[in-house]
Amino acid sequence: MQQLVQGIHRFQREQFSQDKKLFETLVDGQHPLALFITCSDSRIDPNRLTQTKPGELFIQRTAGNIIPPYGAVLGGEAATIEYAVAALKVRDIIVCGHSHCGAMAGLLTPESVESMPAVRAYLQHAEATRRIVEENYSHLTDPAKRLTLTVEENVLVQLESLKTHPSVAAAVGRGDLKLHGWVYKFETGDVFTFDPDQNQFLPLRDVASPLSETQRTLPPI
Amino acid sequence: MQQLVQGIHRFQREQFSQDKKLFETLVDGQHPLALFITCSDSRIDPNRLTQTKPGELFIQRTAGNIIPPYGAVLGGEAATIEYAVAALKVRDIIVCGHSHCGAMAGLLTPESVESMPAVRAYLQHAEATRRIVEENYSHLTDPAKRLTLTVEENVLVQLESLKTHPSVAAAVGRGDLKLHGWVYKFETGDVFTFDPDQNQFLPLRDVASPLSETQRTLPPI
Amino acid sequence: MQQLVQGIHRFQREQFSQDKKLFETLVDGQHPLALFITCSDSRIDPNRLTQTKPGELFIQRTAGNIIPPYGAVLGGEAATIEYAVAALKVRDIIVCGHSHCGAMAGLLTPESVESMPAVRAYLQHAEATRRIVEENYSHLTDPAKRLTLTVEENVLVQLESLKTHPSVAAAVGRGDLKLHGWVYKFETGDVFTFDPDQNQFLPLRDVASPLSETQRTLPPI
Amino acid sequence: MQQLVQGIHRFQREQFSQDKKLFETLVDGQHPLALFITCSDSRIDPNRLTQTKPGELFIQRTAGNIIPPYGAVLGGEAATIEYAVAALKVRDIIVCGHSHCGAMAGLLTPESVESMPAVRAYLQHAEATRRIVEENYSHLTDPAKRLTLTVEENVLVQLESLKTHPSVAAAVGRGDLKLHGWVYKFETGDVFTFDPDQNQFLPLRDVASPLSETQRTLPPI
Amino acid sequence: MQQLVQGIHRFQREQFSQDKKLFETLVDGQHPLALFITCSDSRIDPNRLTQTKPGELFIQRTAGNIIPPYGAVLGGEAATIEYAVAALKVRDIIVCGHSHCGAMAGLLTPESVESMPAVRAYLQHAEATRRIVEENYSHLTDPAKRLTLTVEENVLVQLESLKTHPSVAAAVGRGDLKLHGWVYKFETGDVFTFDPDQNQFLPLRDVASPLSETQRTLPPI
Amino acid sequence: MQQLVQGIHRFQREQFSQDKKLFETLVDGQHPLALFITCSDSRIDPNRLTQTKPGELFIQRTAGNIIPPYGAVLGGEAATIEYAVAALKVRDIIVCGHSHCGAMAGLLTPESVESMPAVRAYLQHAEATRRIVEENYSHLTDPAKRLTLTVEENVLVQLESLKTHPSVAAAVGRGDLKLHGWVYKFETGDVFTFDPDQNQFLPLRDVASPLSETQRTLPPI
Ligand SMILES: [Zn+2]
Ligand SMILES: [Zn+2]
Ligand SMILES: [Zn+2]
Ligand SMILES: [Zn+2]
Ligand SMILES: [Zn+2]
Ligand SMILES: [Zn+2]
Repeated sequence: MQQLVQGIHRFQREQFSQDKKLFETLVDGQHPLALFITCSDSRIDPNRLTQTKPGELFIQRTAGNIIPPYGAVLGGEAATIEYAVAALKVRDIIVCGHSHCGAMAGLLTPESVESMPAVRAYLQHAEATRRIVEENYSHLTDPAKRLTLTVEENVLVQLESLKTHPSVAAAVGRGDLKLHGWVYKFETGDVFTFDPDQNQFLPLRDVASPLSETQRTLPPI
Repeated sequence: MQQLVQGIHRFQREQFSQDKKLFETLVDGQHPLALFITCSDSRIDPNRLTQTKPGELFIQRTAGNIIPPYGAVLGGEAATIEYAVAALKVRDIIVCGHSHCGAMAGLLTPESVESMPAVRAYLQHAEATRRIVEENYSHLTDPAKRLTLTVEENVLVQLESLKTHPSVAAAVGRGDLKLHGWVYKFETGDVFTFDPDQNQFLPLRDVASPLSETQRTLPPI
Repeated sequence: MQQLVQGIHRFQREQFSQDKKLFETLVDGQHPLALFITCSDSRIDPNRLTQTKPGELFIQRTAGNIIPPYGAVLGGEAATIEYAVAALKVRDIIVCGHSHCGAMAGLLTPESVESMPAVRAYLQHAEATRRIVEENYSHLTDPAKRLTLTVEENVLVQLESLKTHPSVAAAVGRGDLKLHGWVYKFETGDVFTFDPDQNQFLPLRDVASPLSETQRTLPPI
Repeated sequence: MQQLVQGIHRFQREQFSQDKKLFETLVDGQHPLALFITCSDSRIDPNRLTQTKPGELFIQRTAGNIIPPYGAVLGGEAATIEYAVAALKVRDIIVCGHSHCGAMAGLLTPESVESMPAVRAYLQHAEATRRIVEENYSHLTDPAKRLTLTVEENVLVQLESLKTHPSVAAAVGRGDLKLHGWVYKFETGDVFTFDPDQNQFLPLRDVASPLSETQRTLPPI
Repeated sequence: MQQLVQGIHRFQREQFSQDKKLFETLVDGQHPLALFITCSDSRIDPNRLTQTKPGELFIQRTAGNIIPPYGAVLGGEAATIEYAVAALKVRDIIVCGHSHCGAMAGLLTPESVESMPAVRAYLQHAEATRRIVEENYSHLTDPAKRLTLTVEENVLVQLESLKTHPSVAAAVGRGDLKLHGWVYKFETGDVFTFDPDQNQFLPLRDVASPLSETQRTLPPI
Repeated sequence: MQQLVQGIHRFQREQFSQDKKLFETLVDGQHPLALFITCSDSRIDPNRLTQTKPGELFIQRTAGNIIPPYGAVLGGEAATIEYAVAALKVRDIIVCGHSHCGAMAGLLTPESVESMPAVRAYLQHAEATRRIVEENYSHLTDPAKRLTLTVEENVLVQLESLKTHPSVAAAVGRGDLKLHGWVYKFETGDVFTFDPDQNQFLPLRDVASPLSETQRTLPPI
């Protein structure tokens, strides 16, 4: 705890002055570029990864970057998403899984979360992930590859779940919002994004993530 | 979106190499110092504020740093807290509110969230905050002061809620976990912590936050 | 009631003998072609519409052919879908809306369901439909056209919701299951199906409904 | 799927013309005789069984003709029942179980639905059925007879559950609504109805089902 | 508070000695005659009313003697009922409403509980009562008579709800448990019980309450 | 049942006349001294224990004197507490556990409540109690002492839970309400209250229970 308090004091002494102007303009409100949804894992620092400054990323973090479908849980995820889309009008939502995710490991080995009833209950919102891996990839037995696949499939499952949120469905429908699925491999610094044309995760290129391209736009009426 | 992608490429080119060694040691698992619970607000960067490195802070972020009591919602908050305490054995949990919080503003002016049903539903977990402010502070009419008070009271309310989580109650009971209530005023860089002796929030000093001192320890049996 | 009892007696006297052989083979189990999800509306007769015999269609009917996302409600919809996919191994699911749907009319005029709290609560699972129509089609003011659009959009919304059900997600992923969105206009006998290429509902042709073509298949691993 | 599409085309070519007039009168609204609640089982065709035409039966179908008590699940069952009674003013509700019901078989052998969590959860609304069979009929060991008994008891249990729905309780109280419990044995074409005087299910006779006779009417005030 | 503490000391000094023997036999377990479900109202003392001694009445008390149907709320009511029936094997359950009940008054005037969201939510389990009174007794305008009728109807509604609890349904079915509906008019000391033959509440006579007589017994198999 | 009916008749003949005046004044409303929350156990008679008369104690009783945190269950506990605090303005709430509590015994031996799903579900609201005993008192193996400890810890856990109820939090904050934790040992007539200074349960002395002394009062603003 001492370390955190000393860190804050160092921040106040050494760094705040360079942010001061920026923070003053932010008193009147935030206009973030995107909603970034990722795991609570301590090895992820979304602002550092994307080199963003205060005011640029609205961030939601719970274990396993899980997004319960709309109506399933009137919890923080639904409220945070709705606030980002309907109040802050973000233009992009990124769902970012990561390598070595403990929540996804728990999904593959339920006995490891036996004594954690709240974790077990929450992982039910990744039941589609579990079922996809179990039913469709029984031939994939290497544990490391199986975990990587689970992390990837879970990003796609949570994107489907995200689309059931009314504010998201409406904004995507009119072309005001794009959805992106990423996987961050922290030990190499790589970020992968799902490419629907090639049907796999590929290294993030210098283009907008293509997933949203398959989104339906407003029909002519 | 382009800015985020370019930021990642800059991170990969310019900064990853200096973190590389650290990240490699983190492949085997995380051992964070604390669970840091704060709002999704884009103006907060917990790692920068506390000058912590990857692996040091387990972070939970949803709108309004709200923590539904145990059993109220089988959502991400309960799972993330349980995982941090029971699996990662963090020794401290910080609940950190902040100045100009949009969620708390929504609590004071329900009509502003009328068209956001998920936000409205989630704010029911801050109903105690709302009721405390309405019933006990009717004399406080200045909107800015009223919002500041609401942010502070909400931190205390959510700490009470946090104590209902079984893993937290058990770890606090045996002295393995301390709970801290903070308010971050981003426009000045100040951090305040609740001091039960003086019954108010005071600037964070270079000591462990005193709130936990009133915690009950194991009775002699 | 007399009419129903007399109808049954007529069925027993005049029609059962011709079904008898078929029913005897069905004693050992059912192997339906598809799961047909439609409204409870009395003007729809799925077996007559599709000219199917006993044993061919597994049928789910509740008001408004609404499908709560997985986890939202542990009700009959989730169980029926799971049973159809995981136990009966159906190869197709059709979500079929219809013209003049009272549930969709209730969605557009909430005051009309004011005194029906269970209906009002259930329509929350069509909140995405309502929001899409309200936010994206404010220019469409003709009530009849607005209801038709609502019926169509609701079919697409419920298809998204259907994809969050784990058994569905897994079976679609491996190519064992296709999803179809239909609208039945009972007063003309027409059936429309959504064509993603043309981005609109078109008369059902003598081909498999194309919606599933955009489904992702198993990636090569 | 081809078969269904071809069936629709046959319906449009060969049968729609004879229904055309009827369907045109139904454009203005439906006035069904009854709400018919039965299982999703493909071997049941309620319209054919009762020889009813479009517009005559409002039909609710989910696995096992289960009706969660009011408030237990804000799902399709409660909304459909409320709409039928409060908006359409049906005068009769029939709960119709059937022979060889897979859902009831699953209730007796929980291990058979082990991998279907949504089915398992839904069957909790037939827990009274399970408990009645287990506690009161331990002497009945023949599997076929045990399944038949379970189907019958479940109809009675779901009728009790139906009475907890406010719109039903109010309409039954003033004599505007009658409730009927049926079992359909599809392989013989027989329909049985519960006779409270004889305390057993008897073949449906040409009279109104007697179950409602025990309903309480308005006391004189 | 002082009064309560002093009352306890008086009990300890003056009365405990006469109960001592009884309490000692009760250390090994309780075998209550009945489960008594009534309102939390301070004007009701079930033990004094029935002249029962410690060990004789298992007592459940929440506002309005409301019993949510099984599955509606996994709260104290369901657990207490199940424990009484399945573990303690009580032979009778009494649901006892009372005159001047504040909860029932709140049901008739929803605006009076506007600022009490938990009360409002709980009264949804008496929605059938409200609907019966509103729809079937619009001619009854005298407020006192209307409240009396509401208390009576609510007892009958909660008895229906009680029957959905599996342990109750099973025990009633085999004749091991009887259900009774009472109304206690504290200002006169009268107790009324529902007589199904006369279709009204009548003064409690020196016979077993007749309501259960209409219960179905085990059919001959 | 006969015994209860005869008891009522004895009450009416022999005792009601002495309460008559009191009951008449209570027709206009109740003004109880306190809300008394205790177990449904038949061996507890709160009015006799505290020597209180009708109108003095508002009483909530469900199995195990469990109080689900606010929002966890919209059941009778939340409504009863809110009504007592917000409508009746009680000044004290007592949570009173007791010796030989069957619910707490069930918490320690889950297999004993295996066939009681509603009891099992409700005990989840005492999961913090279970976890505290299991994790922090593994050295305490004597079953009787372990049950006593569980009863005591559960009172403290439920007090924490009680504080999450908004009406309670607000009233405690302004000094209008005090909370008390008691354990009643019926076989000796002793009542114990938690003393935070000595960190243990001590015999109830002739002073207000000290637990509330640690409550936070309104800060100076
Ligand atoms: Zn993770
Ligand atoms: Zn905020
Ligand atoms: Zn419809
Ligand atoms: Zn069936
Ligand atoms: Zn009352
Ligand atoms: Zn007890």
